[in-house]
Amino acid sequence: MRLLKCLALICPIGAVPGSAQEFPVPTYGVVGPEGSIHMPDGEFRATWPVLGTWTILDEGEVTGQHVVYTQPGVIEHYLETGTFPDGAVLIKELLEAEADEYSTGTAAYATDVTGWFVMVKDKQARFDGNDLWGLGWGWAYFDVDDRQTTTTSDYRFECKTCHVPAKQTDWIFIEGYPVLHTD
Amino acid sequence: MRLLKCLALICPIGAVPGSAQEFPVPTYGVVGPEGSIHMPDGEFRATWPVLGTWTILDEGEVTGQHVVYTQPGVIEHYLETGTFPDGAVLIKELLEAEADEYSTGTAAYATDVTGWFVMVKDKQARFDGNDLWGLGWGWAYFDVDDRQTTTTSDYRFECKTCHVPAKQTDWIFIEGYPVLHTD
Repeated sequence: MRLLKCLALICPIGAVPGSAQEFPVPTYGVVGPEGSIHMPDGEFRATWPVLGTWTILDEGEVTGQHVVYTQPGVIEHYLETGTFPDGAVLIKELLEAEADEYSTGTAAYATDVTGWFVMVKDKQARFDGNDLWGLGWGWAYFDVDDRQTTTTSDYRFECKTCHVPAKQTDWIFIEGYPVLHTD
Repeated sequence: MRLLKCLALICPIGAVPGSAQEFPVPTYGVVGPEGSIHMPDGEFRATWPVLGTWTILDEGEVTGQHVVYTQPGVIEHYLETGTFPDGAVLIKELLEAEADEYSTGTAAYATDVTGWFVMVKDKQARFDGNDLWGLGWGWAYFDVDDRQTTTTSDYRFECKTCHVPAKQTDWIFIEGYPVLHTD
């Protein structure tokens, strides 16, 4: 029933769940053979909704913005079930930022992209033994110059450590994503 | 030819252009009879892409985030033509913000919505004499408690004055929207 709901809600392209790199949600090329992780095909920023934006601060200066995208349908699934669907992709785009003076005051905005953190929800432990996968997620980082090859070799040391404070919310910092809040 | 391109690109629902509140791009209930302006039907945040986020600063403190949404298809149209399509809706969602300490440093994120600024692209001067319309756009502000009734009575004094620095880019602060940049 859960699967049927998911398919009706968020699967414009049918995919047979269960096999290695296939998920009930389209992942747009993000998961390759044997659990390799890549940036999605095409310009996701024009079509994927945003979960939220993190403003990065250093002693009162805005040094960057991190904008988190997910596939169409994932937000609706989360609002209905309180969980991310199997195959949900979260892309945290890292950008530099500039501040300027406007008639309403000081405001900062994003400029150049420097890289991306990618997470892929995996409810089936598909890639046991692959060091990019664990705790119900795939984890990878990409420099802006290479969307195909992650620089991450082991999520335990390069990804998990920063996410420990979000363990109770499936390793995701939900507080930054008002669109997922139902209260 | 421009219209055909537009229709092919961004019109999932057909609408006959030319009459009073009809646009070649679906406006999801934003424009009503005689040019009244409303917030769109439904939860646009789950399905509309984001142009960019403004971080609002006051003496080194982040006091808010302004997140700007537009309908699906508008970004692609802009990247192809360098202009917003007739009927493009821009919603600037105003949110409060909180800052917190993370393992990577200080980061601020959006919390409660306080209101919305709405702009609607109008290439045909459809509502001459309506003080919410001028300079090729409709302009309106909504408090969070009332998505149907704008508090704006005259865009010249309540909207235009702040947008004068962006006159050369069709009154839109393009610098804050990296997804529209082609260089």
